[in-house]
Amino acid sequence: MEIADIVAAARGDSPVDLVLRNARIVNVFSAEVHAGDVAVHHSRIVGLGPGYVGREELDLAGAYLAPGFIDAHVHIESSMLGVREFARAVLPHGTTSVVVDPHEIANVHGLDGIRYMFDQAKYGRLSMFVMVPSCVPATSMATAGAHLEATDIIPLLNDPYVLGLAEMMNFPGVVHGEPQVVEKLKLFTGGVIDGHAPGLTGHYLNAYVAAGIGSDHECTTADEALEKLRLGMYIFIREASNAHNLKDLLPLVTPENCRHFCFCTDDRHPTDLLEHGHIDSMVRTAISEGLDPVSAIRMATLNSADWFRLQDRGAIAPGRRADLVVFESFAEMDIKLVLRGGQIVARDGESLRMDKPDRPSYLRSSMNIDWRSVDFGIPAAGTKVRVIGMVPNQLITRHLVEDARIVNGCAEADIERDLLKVAVIERHMASGNMSKGFVKGLGLRRGALASTVAHDHHNLIVVGADDESMMTAARAVAEMRGGLAVADGDKVLGRLSLPVAGLMSEERLETVCAQKRDLLTAARTLGSPPGQPFVALSFAALEVIPALRLTDQGLVDVEKFEFVDLFVE
Amino acid sequence: MEIADIVAAARGDSPVDLVLRNARIVNVFSAEVHAGDVAVHHSRIVGLGPGYVGREELDLAGAYLAPGFIDAHVHIESSMLGVREFARAVLPHGTTSVVVDPHEIANVHGLDGIRYMFDQAKYGRLSMFVMVPSCVPATSMATAGAHLEATDIIPLLNDPYVLGLAEMMNFPGVVHGEPQVVEKLKLFTGGVIDGHAPGLTGHYLNAYVAAGIGSDHECTTADEALEKLRLGMYIFIREASNAHNLKDLLPLVTPENCRHFCFCTDDRHPTDLLEHGHIDSMVRTAISEGLDPVSAIRMATLNSADWFRLQDRGAIAPGRRADLVVFESFAEMDIKLVLRGGQIVARDGESLRMDKPDRPSYLRSSMNIDWRSVDFGIPAAGTKVRVIGMVPNQLITRHLVEDARIVNGCAEADIERDLLKVAVIERHMASGNMSKGFVKGLGLRRGALASTVAHDHHNLIVVGADDESMMTAARAVAEMRGGLAVADGDKVLGRLSLPVAGLMSEERLETVCAQKRDLLTAARTLGSPPGQPFVALSFAALEVIPALRLTDQGLVDVEKFEFVDLFVE
Repeated sequence: MEIADIVAAARGDSPVDLVLRNARIVNVFSAEVHAGDVAVHHSRIVGLGPGYVGREELDLAGAYLAPGFIDAHVHIESSMLGVREFARAVLPHGTTSVVVDPHEIANVHGLDGIRYMFDQAKYGRLSMFVMVPSCVPATSMATAGAHLEATDIIPLLNDPYVLGLAEMMNFPGVVHGEPQVVEKLKLFTGGVIDGHAPGLTGHYLNAYVAAGIGSDHECTTADEALEKLRLGMYIFIREASNAHNLKDLLPLVTPENCRHFCFCTDDRHPTDLLEHGHIDSMVRTAISEGLDPVSAIRMATLNSADWFRLQDRGAIAPGRRADLVVFESFAEMDIKLVLRGGQIVARDGESLRMDKPDRPSYLRSSMNIDWRSVDFGIPAAGTKVRVIGMVPNQLITRHLVEDARIVNGCAEADIERDLLKVAVIERHMASGNMSKGFVKGLGLRRGALASTVAHDHHNLIVVGADDESMMTAARAVAEMRGGLAVADGDKVLGRLSLPVAGLMSEERLETVCAQKRDLLTAARTLGSPPGQPFVALSFAALEVIPALRLTDQGLVDVEKFEFVDLFVE
Repeated sequence: MEIADIVAAARGDSPVDLVLRNARIVNVFSAEVHAGDVAVHHSRIVGLGPGYVGREELDLAGAYLAPGFIDAHVHIESSMLGVREFARAVLPHGTTSVVVDPHEIANVHGLDGIRYMFDQAKYGRLSMFVMVPSCVPATSMATAGAHLEATDIIPLLNDPYVLGLAEMMNFPGVVHGEPQVVEKLKLFTGGVIDGHAPGLTGHYLNAYVAAGIGSDHECTTADEALEKLRLGMYIFIREASNAHNLKDLLPLVTPENCRHFCFCTDDRHPTDLLEHGHIDSMVRTAISEGLDPVSAIRMATLNSADWFRLQDRGAIAPGRRADLVVFESFAEMDIKLVLRGGQIVARDGESLRMDKPDRPSYLRSSMNIDWRSVDFGIPAAGTKVRVIGMVPNQLITRHLVEDARIVNGCAEADIERDLLKVAVIERHMASGNMSKGFVKGLGLRRGALASTVAHDHHNLIVVGADDESMMTAARAVAEMRGGLAVADGDKVLGRLSLPVAGLMSEERLETVCAQKRDLLTAARTLGSPPGQPFVALSFAALEVIPALRLTDQGLVDVEKFEFVDLFVE
């Protein structure tokens, strides 16, 4: 809106588009709740206070009115939903803006993947901002579908929806001034650079911050968060599907220091989105844990807007966007109404229908496998093998060594010892790369699981009790253009199709959740214990977290950061 | 410093330039004081915590260490000191950065005046940032030495020391969307725009904020500040020589809402600088009034850095400038040591000598008077005259009407009724403009005062009991190339030379204070009551504050915003 128009509307000489009456305004500046009206014109708030007349009027009858919530850091791909479906899922929970790091799809499709996300967000109801992925691929020890160096990133810098550089996970590279890392940081000097530095402390942490990195979402303890807060970092408190930090970090938050804390979800699996909501659930929990409501709301709004320099949102004030949520009680945090740019987009837990222009995708299929190289057999080259030891509810794995079960000159799975075969098949470039190994702790007694969700390179990972099942599962995934599959022998027992990059479905949230549920049921018939076998599987190939991992290029000793042989003697 | 260098220093593998040991660090992020060391390399803080070795080490022995103070809004010209002398005066008080609005010198010398300020600040010890003057001249009803429209401002936008648009005093112009005002605002859309809106409220205040204006330093009551705070404005709490808002506004500040409050001095006359210090005195007073020390320090540091987007200062954190102050106690706020960019610049109340390259000035003399038009006679054109009624300790004047004292067909001063002649002589363009009138309340019983400090257009204002004294005073000021003078008949009783723009001295602070003291003594011999006659005089020509004012163009009825005749009947 032109300045002349917005001041005219604010003067109130003529009716504005909408007046919200009798609100209890949650004021994130004055840290109070005060009664009043809010005048909205076009997409903006133009005034607070009495005396405005609206072409439309909405009597909030004393309900609370707060700024729309902001997720400070999220990977939409982890929800397995397309951008539009993700928006439909989170809007009713009061989230009106998200800041995403699209490194999952970038690892598969590179810049095309990022542009695809922008494309899907266009004309949508959720403001999707992007932080430029900083670590694609995570390392050179796995084959991703793209490689983003500083020069590749430059075209993104001019996009008004690009806010900065995404979680800089390569903290050794930062701390030691690695040239390729420094090149990327330089592009964002004076700008917004997010961090990811679990456990980083002391001098190395000082160096990380001195390099210009200003936020972190990997704090697990209050002490860790305090050390980072003292250095000026924004602390994104995270409640992800597999990382629950809220209750541990909340005790650190006080009204005095609250300004540097934000809420984020990082990764929310579809069932968690469906059953537990989004940022609203974090606000609710924080308040129930004793945090004063206005601080909790600030952490979901103004603080994130401040860090990301989004001056046009995060607060109820003249000139800012009319992204608003209405709820009846802080304790319930029951979002009754959600407005975005002054338009109602969700009511009573449901997104309103919206007729949007189709956004056809030009992403090619991300399944490019050279099947000639795919052979699950492991010729015996010794008597003992390294085994990736999965640890329940943790991302780390153990580097085990066990006797191989040799049958006809090949190392095979051994159900009695819960030793399953695992393979990672390169699926971006049809390079023919494939590595095999063994994993302990996934519990299958027969059959196989296959998935194209395998952080960060997202190659095709397959685990199974026998080669036939593994091939069936692998073929099923490829046929779907990516996704998850459960197989037994030559039969496919369950499928979840993720045709977008092998990461995202084109179905609705409820459908994806149902498919996932059926898949887990099928996996359980094969002997998988209760839990999330596919989630565990999705991290088995992540070659940056200790101790032993498998990528398409080989078996990685993460602590030594080198490839190791499968057979030890 | 290059990123590779700063991370190397922060790693602590090699000695850094300086380690400050055993500090009690005032942490503006975590809102606490914690003991520790601070490592400094080149001009930056590189690390907090133990384990650093410095080529130089400074044992603070438990003293407090805080970020250097920032004055969020100041007119250096009001100190009557040159930029370098101003720096020498404020540095020992812990001020390491100031944000100035150079509209006084801009009203005299235009863009040349602003460039002169930058020039004087170069290589200096005080970081001087500039907000682009938004209202030069204040109105068209007085003749300033320049006229800055949007197109004139554009060259300044690229300067890294230019932070935004200065106090937008023309709030009617903003609220009513005046094209010339809107043009200036547009140049800074999404940027930093300071405000000046005493008493603005309700819909008009909403419009002012909606236009993009985000701060205000004109709040006199807590209620006014609260209304503005609720709309998201930054509240600059001001302690100026003629506006003391600190004690009235402090009760509004809480740890929860503190983030949007900053300290500023606006105008500090030289004697106040000498006797009362600078931002440090505000911090001290705030703490003594009961504000918690960390909040007080934040208002002098981080909050201003945040508003002005100065990411490299305002806090003690890796990567930020080593602009630091050391003091022993919050209550005393006795600044023992001041560092700027890691260098000690002041110790125990004195600035350290610094050999700086000479910065010769190319500003022309700002005294350009067409003396042929200067005649203090007022031919009688009626029997009653309008009189500017000065109000003690207030900026407003009263619009009085009194019987004229006619002698030989001319209206003259009348000492018995405290009616003095006043004249404003245009002195920028030698236009020959000169207006005359009467003023009540300045108390002279003989002689005259003259000054080139006359907000905002800074023409030559003269007040006196008789024409001869007035001419003597006027000539004395012109001869000095600007300044203040006291005269009696044909004798000059006192002078304060302000050769830079007629606003600033080239002398040291102590000398200027002594000259001012002598000048006031001289004025008192003429009958001026105790007080600040020159300060009062400096506002008598300010045609934007009610009710009656005199400019070089005529007598202004401010409430009607029109010229009026001196004689009423």
